[in-house]
Amino acid sequence: MKDFVYYAPTEVVFGEQSEDKVAGLVKKYGGHKVLVHYGGGSVKKSGLLDKVCNLLKEEGVEAVLLGGVVPNPRLSLVHQGIELCRKEGVDFILAVGGGSVIDSSKAIAYGVPYEGDVWDVYLRKYNPETALPIGCVLTIPAAGSEMSDSSVITNEEGWVKLGYSNNVCRAKFAIMNPCRTYTLPAYQTAAGVTDIMMHTMERYFTQDDDMDLTTELAEALLRTMKESVFAVLKDPCNYRHRAQIMWGGSLAHNDLTGCGVTGDWATHQLGHELSGMFDATHGASLAAMWPSWARYVYKSNVSRFVRFAVNVMDVPNDFTDPEGTALKGIEAMERFYCRIGMPINIKGLIGREVTDEEIKEMTRKCSRDYTTAQGAFQTLEASDIEAIYRMAKG
Amino acid sequence: MKDFVYYAPTEVVFGEQSEDKVAGLVKKYGGHKVLVHYGGGSVKKSGLLDKVCNLLKEEGVEAVLLGGVVPNPRLSLVHQGIELCRKEGVDFILAVGGGSVIDSSKAIAYGVPYEGDVWDVYLRKYNPETALPIGCVLTIPAAGSEMSDSSVITNEEGWVKLGYSNNVCRAKFAIMNPCRTYTLPAYQTAAGVTDIMMHTMERYFTQDDDMDLTTELAEALLRTMKESVFAVLKDPCNYRHRAQIMWGGSLAHNDLTGCGVTGDWATHQLGHELSGMFDATHGASLAAMWPSWARYVYKSNVSRFVRFAVNVMDVPNDFTDPEGTALKGIEAMERFYCRIGMPINIKGLIGREVTDEEIKEMTRKCSRDYTTAQGAFQTLEASDIEAIYRMAKG
Repeated sequence: MKDFVYYAPTEVVFGEQSEDKVAGLVKKYGGHKVLVHYGGGSVKKSGLLDKVCNLLKEEGVEAVLLGGVVPNPRLSLVHQGIELCRKEGVDFILAVGGGSVIDSSKAIAYGVPYEGDVWDVYLRKYNPETALPIGCVLTIPAAGSEMSDSSVITNEEGWVKLGYSNNVCRAKFAIMNPCRTYTLPAYQTAAGVTDIMMHTMERYFTQDDDMDLTTELAEALLRTMKESVFAVLKDPCNYRHRAQIMWGGSLAHNDLTGCGVTGDWATHQLGHELSGMFDATHGASLAAMWPSWARYVYKSNVSRFVRFAVNVMDVPNDFTDPEGTALKGIEAMERFYCRIGMPINIKGLIGREVTDEEIKEMTRKCSRDYTTAQGAFQTLEASDIEAIYRMAKG
Repeated sequence: MKDFVYYAPTEVVFGEQSEDKVAGLVKKYGGHKVLVHYGGGSVKKSGLLDKVCNLLKEEGVEAVLLGGVVPNPRLSLVHQGIELCRKEGVDFILAVGGGSVIDSSKAIAYGVPYEGDVWDVYLRKYNPETALPIGCVLTIPAAGSEMSDSSVITNEEGWVKLGYSNNVCRAKFAIMNPCRTYTLPAYQTAAGVTDIMMHTMERYFTQDDDMDLTTELAEALLRTMKESVFAVLKDPCNYRHRAQIMWGGSLAHNDLTGCGVTGDWATHQLGHELSGMFDATHGASLAAMWPSWARYVYKSNVSRFVRFAVNVMDVPNDFTDPEGTALKGIEAMERFYCRIGMPINIKGLIGREVTDEEIKEMTRKCSRDYTTAQGAFQTLEASDIEAIYRMAKG
């Protein structure tokens, strides 16, 4: 069992009336003048943005607005946000939206007190010891950024996408009202749940298989997400299951399901290149890669895949044929992806055959110019990465 | 599903070398002069106290020592601690021990900045908005105080035992080294696991049975504790299972297994009077009461007890006889208690028949002089409480 640090200080305020507490929470965590950061039209259309701004105003908290965050949040908007915060004397950032808005807020929070370019943080040239405090009003369960220490930013110059993790940017609070997720389109709901499950599966597929408590918690979370996504795809306004997905999204990525084990994260790396090259939804890219990754690596620890098949995917255990049971678990996961409208290969994701050149380019990027192996469940060199992309062609 | 707030800010540092980080953590959370608070001989005998003091000294952190905490920690020692902290200008309290030491530390932490008597806090006459910061080096997994917001103190004048909960006293950090629990006697180990499981069972037995995620997480935790306690009773130096019990103890009581549901807590109330009257170990008192509580209330929600029987206690589900399955789950729990050396009734706990007068006295106390009902799974009036004590005579 690996030593671990578990640190999840975010105050989660969960429920139908949770938004009403936004101004009190901002003040509790030291905010007097707030940057309200958001994405596109949905938080305007739903009235959430107006509601939040009115609540802040009523409680005497000044607000400055900055919208326009897009998926794969851009460095240029982060720069704008930093300038705005400095000009206006902002002392708190309130993210109203999903993972992209929260990640963009984290980058702004690093940048305000730093004299250099905040991109230095993502280039690991500068390690911040301080950041503006941030809080969130979550509207999309998927990325888990509301309780995680990480953020991913895309620099439009060269389209470089880099992630960075640091405890100083963990949200002070996260307001979660499941009703705000009723209007998410089916595809985005399914891609979100795929991302949530993958955050835990990346930790679950490990060679450190002596931490039963963490493993059992992970399985509990995966089983629940699997059932809840069917319920909300059938009935988008099902509070019970929207709530479970929303809370599951935070628990899947706040490290609870990784305590004492080494995570793998190869599927995320493989998927990142795919979504980067084809501008595909993050969760869908993970679904497109996972079955091929799984078939390529399962022999490294068959018993783990058997456990997954039986305890998560409800595959009957054929005790005489562990490999067969393991493969049936992977097939069951493919069927699950198909049923929720996710792709199970690259063709399903992008709608055409991926070319040899594209595979080579993704392999080069994923292996950082053939210098870096990926994964921990099984170490993947560039040749392995290329083989998995080929298996995933479809 | 109930709205909820989840707040677990304690930084958990877990592993064999975790103690080495104690001085750095104290400094990180603002400590310059520390009260090192502990119980009896075991932390001295094991060398842990010396190790901690040396590490603090090496890093230039001044330490003042106060030992002598006993189970059911006393108000008089809390008063001593408050005086000592004021006299010495202590700005951080480090609890080295189990739940009693941590609870005593929390009381001192409330008392130092308060001008009145700290007992006011437990009498709910004063609600602290501030407290000295505390940290812990945990040696006994059971109470979960290292991540919880609660503490229980006994006032020797009249032997009144009162609990109080407040987020301001949550520990800043908790150092957990499973090796420190190798020397715990079998009885204390078993009583600790009983307490851990009961913290989650109090939340699990609820009428809010629409929060599958929380329920599944609770079952995962209960199953793991059940297996791990057998392993460590057989092999006290089994790191893997000692670690799971230690981490399980924190997760069982940091509210994770209660998100979205209303807990019951009647067994704790029934057990408190028992341990108060007969000076019995807290965990053992819970085991003595739970089977009778369960048989008295299970009809209020049979399906919940069936679920417990099947998913936690491995009882085969007789679909034609839910009540029968529920009762088999209670019997299986009794067998589990017997196998780990815990009592299943009052006679087993105190070694003789409890008298009618004693039952009446406990009923009076548990119902706060016949004014207060207990429980939420099923509301228990004084007559119910008395009936359960009678069922539990043995």
